[in-house]
Amino acid sequence: MLVVQKYGGTSVGDLDRIQNVANKVAKTVDAGNDVVVIVSAMSGETNKLLDYATHFSKKPPQRELDLLVSSGERVTSALLSIALQEMGYNATAMTGRQAGIKTDSNHTKARISSIDPTPMQNELQKGKIIVVAGFQGINENGDVTTLGRGGSDLTAVAIAGALNADVCEIYTDVDGIYTTDPRIEPKAKRLDRISYDEMLELASMGAKVMQSRSVELAKKLNVDILVKSSFKDEDNNGTLITREENVMEKVLVSGIALDKNQVRVTVFGLEDKPGINAELFNKLADKNINVDMIIQNVGHDNKANVTFTVPETELELTKEVMKDFENRSEEISYDENIAKVSIVGVGMKSHSGVAATAFDTMAKENINIQMISTSEIKISMVIDEKYGELAVRALHEAYGLDK
Amino acid sequence: MLVVQKYGGTSVGDLDRIQNVANKVAKTVDAGNDVVVIVSAMSGETNKLLDYATHFSKKPPQRELDLLVSSGERVTSALLSIALQEMGYNATAMTGRQAGIKTDSNHTKARISSIDPTPMQNELQKGKIIVVAGFQGINENGDVTTLGRGGSDLTAVAIAGALNADVCEIYTDVDGIYTTDPRIEPKAKRLDRISYDEMLELASMGAKVMQSRSVELAKKLNVDILVKSSFKDEDNNGTLITREENVMEKVLVSGIALDKNQVRVTVFGLEDKPGINAELFNKLADKNINVDMIIQNVGHDNKANVTFTVPETELELTKEVMKDFENRSEEISYDENIAKVSIVGVGMKSHSGVAATAFDTMAKENINIQMISTSEIKISMVIDEKYGELAVRALHEAYGLDK
Repeated sequence: MLVVQKYGGTSVGDLDRIQNVANKVAKTVDAGNDVVVIVSAMSGETNKLLDYATHFSKKPPQRELDLLVSSGERVTSALLSIALQEMGYNATAMTGRQAGIKTDSNHTKARISSIDPTPMQNELQKGKIIVVAGFQGINENGDVTTLGRGGSDLTAVAIAGALNADVCEIYTDVDGIYTTDPRIEPKAKRLDRISYDEMLELASMGAKVMQSRSVELAKKLNVDILVKSSFKDEDNNGTLITREENVMEKVLVSGIALDKNQVRVTVFGLEDKPGINAELFNKLADKNINVDMIIQNVGHDNKANVTFTVPETELELTKEVMKDFENRSEEISYDENIAKVSIVGVGMKSHSGVAATAFDTMAKENINIQMISTSEIKISMVIDEKYGELAVRALHEAYGLDK
Repeated sequence: MLVVQKYGGTSVGDLDRIQNVANKVAKTVDAGNDVVVIVSAMSGETNKLLDYATHFSKKPPQRELDLLVSSGERVTSALLSIALQEMGYNATAMTGRQAGIKTDSNHTKARISSIDPTPMQNELQKGKIIVVAGFQGINENGDVTTLGRGGSDLTAVAIAGALNADVCEIYTDVDGIYTTDPRIEPKAKRLDRISYDEMLELASMGAKVMQSRSVELAKKLNVDILVKSSFKDEDNNGTLITREENVMEKVLVSGIALDKNQVRVTVFGLEDKPGINAELFNKLADKNINVDMIIQNVGHDNKANVTFTVPETELELTKEVMKDFENRSEEISYDENIAKVSIVGVGMKSHSGVAATAFDTMAKENINIQMISTSEIKISMVIDEKYGELAVRALHEAYGLDK
C-alpha cells in the first residue's frame, strides 16, 4: 500500500514527539507500506515567527511572511528525516518546491495549482520514505507561498491524490470524528466512517478536526482520509472520511454539531425596494463575511424583516457594512447570545420525519427555535445560547446516537 | 555606488538589532546607493537547530542538516525585508536559490560553483533593496546546501564579485582590523587599509574577524572588503582589505598576531628512510589536519628530529595518526604550552632587518625562541605560552605600531 500520513503541530510539538512520529512511520514501513509523510511546524513555531514579523509591521508584506513562516515546516521535515535515518530507514526530506507543489501567487492563502509527482515517485522507487514540509509550495516566480489555515492537511490530501495513494492518514490530537463533541455529551460515539458531505456539514459547523477545503479536495480527488490520534497506540482505528457509497450502514443521523460563535443580525423594517436584499448580501460578500443562515419575513407596511447569522469574529466588519442600511431600515439589532445546533446525516435524504423529531425534542425541553434552515443532509436550528448543550444532549439521545 | 553589506549573527541577534540594521541599510540607500544585504541567522539560532539534530543522531545526515540550518538565514532575510518595507523602502528577500547561488554537493561545507547575477540585477533595476539569506545555495539536484564556517561572509564576497559591486562591507562586532589584539595591547591601532595577503596571514593566525576563504575569494575576484562595526554610528571608518597596490603607506609591519591554540609535536629519532617524511605529512593531510610550522634537524646516528605544530582541536586525531610512527622513532612528545607570535607586513618584502628586530626584541625580554618560520610577508616564532602576551607587547612597541 502507498500510505500518506500527515502529522500536525501538536503531534510534532517537541523533539520527543518527533521521535514518536518517527516510530509510527517506521511501524507503517515495517508493515510493508510505502510512506509519504507530511509534517507541520512544531506547535508554537509559526506563531513565534508571526510575532517576529508583527514586531516590525502591523501588516507585514505577504511574500516575505511566506518565506518567514514556511521555515517552520522545513525544520520539522529535516528533523524527522534525520530521526528516521538514525533508525536505519532510508528517508529523504523535501520542501514543497522539491515535492513539485506549484501554487498561485495568493501569498499566505495560496491555492495548489498543480503537483508534479515525478520527483516523489523517483524517490519512492528508490525505496525511500519521503518527508515533505507541509503548508507550502512555490508560485510561478519561484517565490515560496503558504497555503493558509489547514495547509498541511491540504498538502497531504493533494499529494495523496497526485500519487494515487491508498489512504491519506491525518494524525491529530483526537482519535476520530464523533457523533457530537464528547466534552458536551460523554456518551458520544466515534464514527467508523463518514461521507465527505456529512464531514463538510460538520466541519463548517464547529467540528474543528478537518478544514472544509481539505475535505472538499479529498472529495474532488476521491482520496480516502483516515483521521487518527497521534498519541494512542491501541484502539486507534480512527474515522474514515470517504465516498457516500462506501459508508455502509446508512444511518439516519451521523452527528450533532454545536456552534456558539455565531451572531444573529436582524434588520427590522428594511425598505421594500427591488434589489435591496441583493445589495445587502453582495456588500457582505465583498468583505468576505461568511453569512450562514438567512430568513426573510414580510413585516408591516410592506417593509421586510431580514435576519441572518455571521461569525462573531466578523461582527465588527458586519456592523461597518450595515451602516449603509441604517437610513433605509427602522432598526438593526445584533444578538450574540445564540447557538446553532445542527443535525447531519446522509440518511435524511431518503427518510422523512427527521425534522419532526428535532422539533419535538426541542418542544419537550421547552427550547424556543428562533431560526431553521435545512439542506439535503442537514437541519440547523438557532436557539438561545444557554440551551445549546442541553439541545445537543437531547438530540443525541432522540436519534439514538449513544446506542 | 553599488554596495554589498553583510551583517553577522550578533548584528541581527534580536529584533531590535534587526531594526538597527534596517536603519543602517536605509541610510546607505538615502545616500544614493544601490544596496544588496546579506544576513546571517540570528545568533544562537543555528546552534539551536544543530542541537535539535544531534538530539536524534550523533552524526546527522548532512543533506538534511543543510535543509535544517539554512532556515535560520531565511528567517532573518524575511524579517529585515519586512522592516525595510515598513519604513517605506522597496525591498525584497531572496533565498540563496533565488539569488542564483549554485554550489557543489559537498553538504555542510559546499563551495560556490557559480552565481547567476540576472535575478538580482533585475530586482536592482526595479530600484529594490535585495536582502539575501547568507550561507546557502543549491546544488545541481536542487537540494539546499550550506557553505560552512564564514559562509555568509563568503556569500557577500561572491555576490559583490558577481555584481561587480563597488565595495563589500562586512559589519561585525569589531570596528576593523587592529595592529594587534587590543585586549592584549591597549595601544593597538586600527588599520585604515590592509592587503589581502597580510589579512590572510593574520586570519590564519588568530585574528578571528574574517575567515581566510572569504579573503582568498575577495583577492581572486578583486573585491574590496570594508570591515566595520554594526554597533557604532560615529568614527566607524573600518578597515579596507584591498589589493596591495591600494595600500598607500607601505608600512614595514602591519600587525602582530598571537595564536595560543597550537600544539608542538616533536618526533625524536625518526628512522632515516627515504619518503618517511612524505608519508608522515601525507597521513596528516589525509585526515585534514592543519599542519602549520615544520622544522627538521638531523639528530644523532643519522636519525632525524622532526618538529611541527597542529591546532589543539586536532591533537587527538594527530595522536592517532602518529601511532603508526611509534615503532619507527625513539620518542614522540606533545607540548601544548606554546604560543605562536607572528609579525605580518608587506613592507618586509623590500626591507631587511625586520627579522633581526624580532630576534633582538625576544632576546631583550629573555624569551627563548623554539621555532622560527618565515614567508615573504610574515615571521612566526614559537615561544613558551606564558610569554605570549609579553612578546606581543614588546614587538608592537619595537615596530612602532603604537605611534
